[in-house]
Amino acid sequence: MRSFLGRDILSLQDFERHEYFRVFEVAALLEPYARDRRNGDLLKHKTLVTAFYQPSTRTRLATEAAMHRLGGHVTGFSDAKMTRAGDFYQESIQDTFKMLEYYGDVIAIRHFQQGAPAEAAEHVSVPIINCGDGWGEHPTQVITDLLTIYREKGTLDGLTWILIGDMRMRTMHSITYALSKFDVKAYVISPPEMSLTDEHKTRITDMGLRWEEKEHIDQVIGEADVIYMEPVVQPDYTKSREEVPDQKGLTPANYQVTRKLLFEKAKPDSIVLHSLPRQDELLPDVDKTRHQRYWVEAYNGVLSRMALLALILGAVE
Amino acid sequence: MRSFLGRDILSLQDFERHEYFRVFEVAALLEPYARDRRNGDLLKHKTLVTAFYQPSTRTRLATEAAMHRLGGHVTGFSDAKMTRAGDFYQESIQDTFKMLEYYGDVIAIRHFQQGAPAEAAEHVSVPIINCGDGWGEHPTQVITDLLTIYREKGTLDGLTWILIGDMRMRTMHSITYALSKFDVKAYVISPPEMSLTDEHKTRITDMGLRWEEKEHIDQVIGEADVIYMEPVVQPDYTKSREEVPDQKGLTPANYQVTRKLLFEKAKPDSIVLHSLPRQDELLPDVDKTRHQRYWVEAYNGVLSRMALLALILGAVE
Amino acid sequence: MRSFLGRDILSLQDFERHEYFRVFEVAALLEPYARDRRNGDLLKHKTLVTAFYQPSTRTRLATEAAMHRLGGHVTGFSDAKMTRAGDFYQESIQDTFKMLEYYGDVIAIRHFQQGAPAEAAEHVSVPIINCGDGWGEHPTQVITDLLTIYREKGTLDGLTWILIGDMRMRTMHSITYALSKFDVKAYVISPPEMSLTDEHKTRITDMGLRWEEKEHIDQVIGEADVIYMEPVVQPDYTKSREEVPDQKGLTPANYQVTRKLLFEKAKPDSIVLHSLPRQDELLPDVDKTRHQRYWVEAYNGVLSRMALLALILGAVE
Repeated sequence: MRSFLGRDILSLQDFERHEYFRVFEVAALLEPYARDRRNGDLLKHKTLVTAFYQPSTRTRLATEAAMHRLGGHVTGFSDAKMTRAGDFYQESIQDTFKMLEYYGDVIAIRHFQQGAPAEAAEHVSVPIINCGDGWGEHPTQVITDLLTIYREKGTLDGLTWILIGDMRMRTMHSITYALSKFDVKAYVISPPEMSLTDEHKTRITDMGLRWEEKEHIDQVIGEADVIYMEPVVQPDYTKSREEVPDQKGLTPANYQVTRKLLFEKAKPDSIVLHSLPRQDELLPDVDKTRHQRYWVEAYNGVLSRMALLALILGAVE
Repeated sequence: MRSFLGRDILSLQDFERHEYFRVFEVAALLEPYARDRRNGDLLKHKTLVTAFYQPSTRTRLATEAAMHRLGGHVTGFSDAKMTRAGDFYQESIQDTFKMLEYYGDVIAIRHFQQGAPAEAAEHVSVPIINCGDGWGEHPTQVITDLLTIYREKGTLDGLTWILIGDMRMRTMHSITYALSKFDVKAYVISPPEMSLTDEHKTRITDMGLRWEEKEHIDQVIGEADVIYMEPVVQPDYTKSREEVPDQKGLTPANYQVTRKLLFEKAKPDSIVLHSLPRQDELLPDVDKTRHQRYWVEAYNGVLSRMALLALILGAVE
Repeated sequence: MRSFLGRDILSLQDFERHEYFRVFEVAALLEPYARDRRNGDLLKHKTLVTAFYQPSTRTRLATEAAMHRLGGHVTGFSDAKMTRAGDFYQESIQDTFKMLEYYGDVIAIRHFQQGAPAEAAEHVSVPIINCGDGWGEHPTQVITDLLTIYREKGTLDGLTWILIGDMRMRTMHSITYALSKFDVKAYVISPPEMSLTDEHKTRITDMGLRWEEKEHIDQVIGEADVIYMEPVVQPDYTKSREEVPDQKGLTPANYQVTRKLLFEKAKPDSIVLHSLPRQDELLPDVDKTRHQRYWVEAYNGVLSRMALLALILGAVE
């Protein structure tokens, strides 16, 4: 069995079924630090480097919080403009990571370019954690999603998922890879121009995922155990705040979850996940329903990163 | 008596007289860590989350420094543009803080919107420290101001204050609330268009503050024990450095403190406080006078936050 | 002999020969923390404040990493726009550093203005480390450079250096000062408009450096033990990424190092140093050659800062 020690977390394509359960087991072991709000010292001798070339709150802070909960140190950058690394100054991934590897013991990277974390991993001797790479993958988010479902259901088999939103997004790539390791059925719902690429479709079919495209959430919501959401409308990040019109209220009903829909058509124990932030694909009136699990994901997101960091850095096992 | 444990610090409207003294007492108890420049480990098990939606140096770093002096961990963001939270990306306070509460054990927030910290506090289970909210309040700054005077005079009663500058600013709101708990007289001096709102005037009168508006500092400087200052001219933060003309030299004498004024008219033991940064309302020739106490405020600002963090997180009492 | 305790590191003009060796000795002593990737606790009671008014990755992170390796705390800012300090908001160095000195026990500053660190040092009671000041100096980079050569050669005497690139840059100022303390010969190669100033030429001659200007690296590469490089072409940092044309491929052969040149003309054991990031003055085909030492500088850069921090803060000696 592969060890987690020193391992890169780049993609869920090669993440094994038993490896998810090992992460969940370690997450449970370490949970008292988070639950009791009492940082330990398992990683006090280690430093996490965050190399975030794109803005992020949840992923960066969850990873940093996990490191702090285990007593570790954190350094890095959270904006490519704050650094002389990155494409703006045209420095290569190689030059940048040949430097970063000496500043800490594990590097968490978010990059606008698909494949950047994998390229970084080729050049350095410390483990790399992919915290989102362009249209590529977002493995730690999806490990968090599965942990959330597992803590709830006690299993990841026998469930029906709806994946709804822009299917070109990295979480959608990682979740489809991950689900292929379990006995699930996945319905995929997105605007036609945001559908999975043909290449991706072939790959997940080859990996054994049972999946099917649908046009409207109405068609399948009654079957879903998990409704997994991403936006289909995105703010124009190149515009200033003043220039941005209110972009809410634009999501077609096909890709939208409301309390009315859940109460009228969903299974009573179905779970809604969303990695947030959201636009209007997920209405605030869902927040207080029993279906909502997107907020507890922040907590589970710390647990999952604590487990990964402890495993990768050899503090457990 | 209310405990500080787990408490939000949102406003000084409801901060009791004895609570200031309790903070000062704990500040004195913890001072050796700061004075001897030797971080302790009272809060080593805790993490501070800084959620700064607006630029800040003094408040953010004083709060972080206080956490470090007590051995604690710090994570967070110092610019709304570095995060996908915040209004730019149109994420609600609720969604953002439902996440942040799991990343640490106390959250220090600066926000451009008045009331944002209070709104955040409604949604989370960890204590919130308001580090400045729009035109609202700035409680930790004012607790620092009072600590500075108390360390000097041994009392907060029997003093005459001049509050001078833009009275719509958050420090002015907090200081007027705070002073109402003590036996003081406050003169208020500002340009007419920057005066206290009628609503605020009624509120502080109802709270028992003895206050009076004046037009020119000359009229009352001879009576003042404390001269408490804010600018009346502000740099245009929307302009780039190159576009900003030299905005100094614009403050009318009515709202300006100079060495000449102090030496000729002020009480020999009067104290000048300014939360800085300053424009030309407070001239550099005051820096070397015995009246100047604005620099020692940086030191006291660490002490006051050490005391608040220790109390709120249950490391003392 | 001067103690390092509490000392500012502002310039290498007054850095003594034996002081370099003391830093190297302490670097060797502390190296196990970095090599074994196991943070110690020599500086756990201390806080580093980083005051970076300009973007930096290497220098800021190497300094922070060094502090973390010794168990210390770090706070500060990495971009003038994230703070209300700095010229944008027109706050004086004095006002800013009269504050920062209480937030930690040593301050590392990068500033766009030459002399800013020295000015800061006049106002505060904690040691200041100059991490680059405009066209001024960059002492910790050059201490790292010398450490790299010393670890390799066991001596700093008897070597011939080529200094090639924009000689107005701060590293060039610091390296010429530093080399004057050793028995070396330095060839200086730059475009005429980027040459050392007459004042600087006089100063280093007076300090005893044996140096000579050349026009083309071809003329002297055969004699060099160390080739020390900076770019002669700079990206236009005021332009957005989209506006920046590909600025590579512009460096004249006079100031460029390639594998071909090294293999055909350089001494077989010559060493190429570059503080990075690079443009096309140093081609990627050099990366895999035995001459390349610019990547190991990231490691040595942590060692050198560990040694400096430990010495300055009194953790050794």
